Amino acid sequence: MDKYIITIGRQFGSGGRAIGEKLAKKLGISFYDKELISLAAKESGIDPEIFDNVDEKAANSLLYSLSMGLYSFGSGFSAMGDLPVNDRLYILQHKIIKEIAEKESCVIVGRCADYVLRDNPNCVNVFIYANMEFRKREAVKKHGIDEERAEHIITKTDKSRANYYSFYSGQKWGMAENYDLCINSAKLSEDSIVDLIIEYMKER
Amino acid sequence: MDKYIITIGRQFGSGGRAIGEKLAKKLGISFYDKELISLAAKESGIDPEIFDNVDEKAANSLLYSLSMGLYSFGSGFSAMGDLPVNDRLYILQHKIIKEIAEKESCVIVGRCADYVLRDNPNCVNVFIYANMEFRKREAVKKHGIDEERAEHIITKTDKSRANYYSFYSGQKWGMAENYDLCINSAKLSEDSIVDLIIEYMKER
Repeated sequence: MDKYIITIGRQFGSGGRAIGEKLAKKLGISFYDKELISLAAKESGIDPEIFDNVDEKAANSLLYSLSMGLYSFGSGFSAMGDLPVNDRLYILQHKIIKEIAEKESCVIVGRCADYVLRDNPNCVNVFIYANMEFRKREAVKKHGIDEERAEHIITKTDKSRANYYSFYSGQKWGMAENYDLCINSAKLSEDSIVDLIIEYMKER
Repeated sequence: MDKYIITIGRQFGSGGRAIGEKLAKKLGISFYDKELISLAAKESGIDPEIFDNVDEKAANSLLYSLSMGLYSFGSGFSAMGDLPVNDRLYILQHKIIKEIAEKESCVIVGRCADYVLRDNPNCVNVFIYANMEFRKREAVKKHGIDEERAEHIITKTDKSRANYYSFYSGQKWGMAENYDLCINSAKLSEDSIVDLIIEYMKER
């Protein structure tokens, strides 16, 4: 492979982001997660905080968008001026992901990147997941989430990611067949998963 | 790991069975697929052909079972004498899978083995899948299926496997989270997949 992109879909608390970061570091390539918001914000002139609020959330109903003030910012993006901010962020991230994939090898976490790059033969799509018990422990330890509320937050975040993924890709989030490789992170250390993905890249 | 079991769930035409066979051979351990039917038939005294007809199919309705003559064979299995033959085969295979897992390291293809052995810490659950285009090609080439009918047969077989899995395990077939490792066989050769699973075993 010449230039290649590894996309990582991940359940909340599965360690997918950390695995992606370690993988990018070990391969000496760029890493994009929240960084995509900064790029989208920069390109659109919209406050990154506004984008952050709707990141990886499917577009809300028109009424909800209006009530939340998420609608029509009248930015320089005249063609997108009438779209809810979620859709604008999706379109911008879509464009940025395509540009990045043209330019450099990298790891991209979330944001339907697997679907955005579905026609790119040098794209490897990975999904990281784990059982609830493991993810609760991780959410408390790594995200500082209250133990009592951990399961609720995990379920809510993943529901939001699933909706986002299905809204924009028309596919079911977490179905093995959408990915090239799916790894249960409750059974292997982060470093071992990184090594396994690199092994996979070599076999390809 | 001392004794270990690798279970392989697979979409029809994905090459999962061949991968399982090669894997078992390379690891020097036993391989079970249809062999489980022979064992179940031997144990129950029921004609293997009758079991073969209902293999990996969920139990039918009582009426259907009666009309198909799949009901109450009055075999030596008095406790199971009133069960549809699908359920009898499941119960027998369940028992045999547990016994095999106690006795030796092996590869087991299909038959909800991942679910049957869910409490066994030395069990590694793999799922093999591929896109329809790839599976159609494989079905024609390896199973000698007519090209025109390939998609219909693949869809029907997988629907049957999905029903069987969901009926007995209560889980959704093909969801990444039911497995330790899921590999898209359209992107990697069978030998590379075998090597990757062995690499995974080493990391565990």
